[in-house]
Amino acid sequence: MANKAKQLALGLFIRAHGHHLAAWKQPNVPNEAGLTLAHYRNIVTTAERAKLDFVFLADSMGVRASVQPDAAFERTPHLTHFEPITLLSALATFTQHIGLVATASTTYYEPFHVARLFASLDYLSGGRAAWNVVTSNGVGEAENFSAQAHPKHDARYARAIEFLDVVKKLWDSWEDDAFTWNENSGVVFDKSKLHQPNHVGEHFSVAGPLNVSRPPQGHPIIVQAGGSGPGIELAALTADVVFAVHPTLADGQAFYSKLKGRLSDAGRDPASLKIMPGIFPVVGRSRAEADEKYAQLQESLDPVLAISQLSNLLDGVDLSGYPLDGPVPDLPGTNASVTRLKVLRETAERDGLNLLQLAQRIAGSRGHHQVFGTAADIADRMEEWFHKEAADGFNLLPATLPGGLEDFAELVVPELQRRGLFRTEYSGASLRENLGLSRPVHPALRTSSAA
Amino acid sequence: MANKAKQLALGLFIRAHGHHLAAWKQPNVPNEAGLTLAHYRNIVTTAERAKLDFVFLADSMGVRASVQPDAAFERTPHLTHFEPITLLSALATFTQHIGLVATASTTYYEPFHVARLFASLDYLSGGRAAWNVVTSNGVGEAENFSAQAHPKHDARYARAIEFLDVVKKLWDSWEDDAFTWNENSGVVFDKSKLHQPNHVGEHFSVAGPLNVSRPPQGHPIIVQAGGSGPGIELAALTADVVFAVHPTLADGQAFYSKLKGRLSDAGRDPASLKIMPGIFPVVGRSRAEADEKYAQLQESLDPVLAISQLSNLLDGVDLSGYPLDGPVPDLPGTNASVTRLKVLRETAERDGLNLLQLAQRIAGSRGHHQVFGTAADIADRMEEWFHKEAADGFNLLPATLPGGLEDFAELVVPELQRRGLFRTEYSGASLRENLGLSRPVHPALRTSSAA
Repeated sequence: MANKAKQLALGLFIRAHGHHLAAWKQPNVPNEAGLTLAHYRNIVTTAERAKLDFVFLADSMGVRASVQPDAAFERTPHLTHFEPITLLSALATFTQHIGLVATASTTYYEPFHVARLFASLDYLSGGRAAWNVVTSNGVGEAENFSAQAHPKHDARYARAIEFLDVVKKLWDSWEDDAFTWNENSGVVFDKSKLHQPNHVGEHFSVAGPLNVSRPPQGHPIIVQAGGSGPGIELAALTADVVFAVHPTLADGQAFYSKLKGRLSDAGRDPASLKIMPGIFPVVGRSRAEADEKYAQLQESLDPVLAISQLSNLLDGVDLSGYPLDGPVPDLPGTNASVTRLKVLRETAERDGLNLLQLAQRIAGSRGHHQVFGTAADIADRMEEWFHKEAADGFNLLPATLPGGLEDFAELVVPELQRRGLFRTEYSGASLRENLGLSRPVHPALRTSSAA
Repeated sequence: MANKAKQLALGLFIRAHGHHLAAWKQPNVPNEAGLTLAHYRNIVTTAERAKLDFVFLADSMGVRASVQPDAAFERTPHLTHFEPITLLSALATFTQHIGLVATASTTYYEPFHVARLFASLDYLSGGRAAWNVVTSNGVGEAENFSAQAHPKHDARYARAIEFLDVVKKLWDSWEDDAFTWNENSGVVFDKSKLHQPNHVGEHFSVAGPLNVSRPPQGHPIIVQAGGSGPGIELAALTADVVFAVHPTLADGQAFYSKLKGRLSDAGRDPASLKIMPGIFPVVGRSRAEADEKYAQLQESLDPVLAISQLSNLLDGVDLSGYPLDGPVPDLPGTNASVTRLKVLRETAERDGLNLLQLAQRIAGSRGHHQVFGTAADIADRMEEWFHKEAADGFNLLPATLPGGLEDFAELVVPELQRRGLFRTEYSGASLRENLGLSRPVHPALRTSSAA
């Protein structure tokens, strides 16, 4: 119950039009949202006025279309969009406090690039960069990188663990005060404060040093979303923030307890990792208004597209041949998204949904917890999850953008602030400070006392 | 002499402190220039007020330090700095007209990443992105990418040619008007306007399509700097802009004539490629003032660092053991920088310079043409090169930043404008338009008439 004295962490998961599949058809949502800087500028400045901890950009290395039937593919509204790290570099200039989380794949990037891009973003933003580590499981990504298929799940995670190790060594190439700029001697850095990684491992050989100084946050924040066994292991070892997909409180509590336990096992303070489940909130001034907003989105939802999204969430299994009014079929669990598959099937069974109904149910939330109602309703739910140890905070998935965010900022944030559950001003100079996480001491300066 | 009706293209080559090795010791040059966004913002907004075509960022995938003796390494002022593509993404938000050129290596990146990053930058900047294509020849780069050494010169160029082909195919994944956003049918794009690359070649297999729409410029501008045989071949096939290193007018004319001839051979209009040699200008209100500025820089130049830079320019041959007052040694020409080696040795022979004197001579210019004097002197030299077909424009290497750029903007630009050699306002909406280069028609729309 140590949480009670603390406050919620809140992130905004940005999907260009919003998270509901029919969001692009709504008024005030630009069609070309994914490639319109002014649209993103509007979103992040609204999020910063609401004092959110960070904005988050997911990513994949392709259009994730290979298994879609043409009829669904040509109705998919988020095929093209900015690359996240470049977009956040631009958005850094419009903001001063909010954290900037970009996704990058350990399977299709090299550690030197990733270390460098996020170190650069950390300097551009004055200490607000975060890297969401993914190992990639989308359809059609491998084929964009001269490969036939993704490496197997375990191999991807083994590579990811070494990748993270290399990236952190690169960030630690220079101690914080390595550069001294002595005009008399002409010496610009202290040689004893350069620590060349010279990493040689199973997957990578990286000499270094990095050509960026130690980042303002020491290490940019590490975010992860994996809920599988190796995913939890990787998170326990390396993550500062974990996104989770939990439709119910009980699911959230079970995961929270398991992961925090693994942190203790790994010798880490359980408070050093923030668990932030996704939440899909639809807020109105009354419950009827919230229901009306959601109903309007559901009415313009294309069933073909809804089924296709469900297929993609189930690791690319094509569901278009199954009866829409039948049960969720008994699919063979593929290796990448077993957690998601389990969550979705349980949701369908619990609520007696047929295939189409399940697809419609998750057309906005993609399996994340949904809550509809007034600001008090939504704050109640968040408070419950927070106090019952299912969440240290939430990653918000507004149905539409900017509208769904504006509603949340205008109605829910003040309610959370009244309850003392959320900040009224940023207190830290960096994302790390605002999250209440300590800055990693450079390894050369760590005392070798008790772990 | 078709050039006479046209105007010069002018780029600004940004090195954080300025191009002279002693620049960091000057007043008004921040020590941490390479990681200070406000410093770069000041530079690019000054360059845009001066109506320059673009700013240019070089790059390497390491600190280029391996062959340096420690005494030189610890005096090197440009070891750490922003990553160029993230930096330009931020700078795009402070500017409206000026082009943004970032360097990326075809040897250590994947085509999908490069196509995506530059397409994203092109959207962020409203059509101002350019990619400087390099194949990498720096010391210590391969070792950061799990390789022992760079591939051989010819292999790097073969990979580069295919890499460029793939990137252009990815940029052409979607026709310009592929996205239609029909709210009634729910269809968001016209399937007939999607052109999946499905590239299979010697070095790459890339299915595509790109997850960015066709860039505002069709293709971001392609810049190249290679002066070797394969470099000229690559430029003739693919470049929009070529940087060159020519200490003398005669060198510039020979290169200009050779490359423009190769363009004709390749079936391209010679006007479709801009040749822009580097120029290191030191400008004063009088010649004495210019000489004084340069002398002041040279006085604070550290000989150890000057010799080390010369070593790096000569492909990493360590010169620190040779007598400083002896001749430039007869080094075996290594495969990557034969052109640079030839230029430097000819400079030393022509002007009777010993090893230290050559190192000092190029402490700012690194072998590029140097010119000291008043605005009229510098404009005279640029006009001569332009009219005598050694240059379509220049890439400026100011000795210090922002000071050297401010001098050029205040003194030389108005002189060039008075002579009708340079624009007084931007006329185009994109970098491509400002350079006077036509927008590539999508391959699906090209007529199959005479080449």
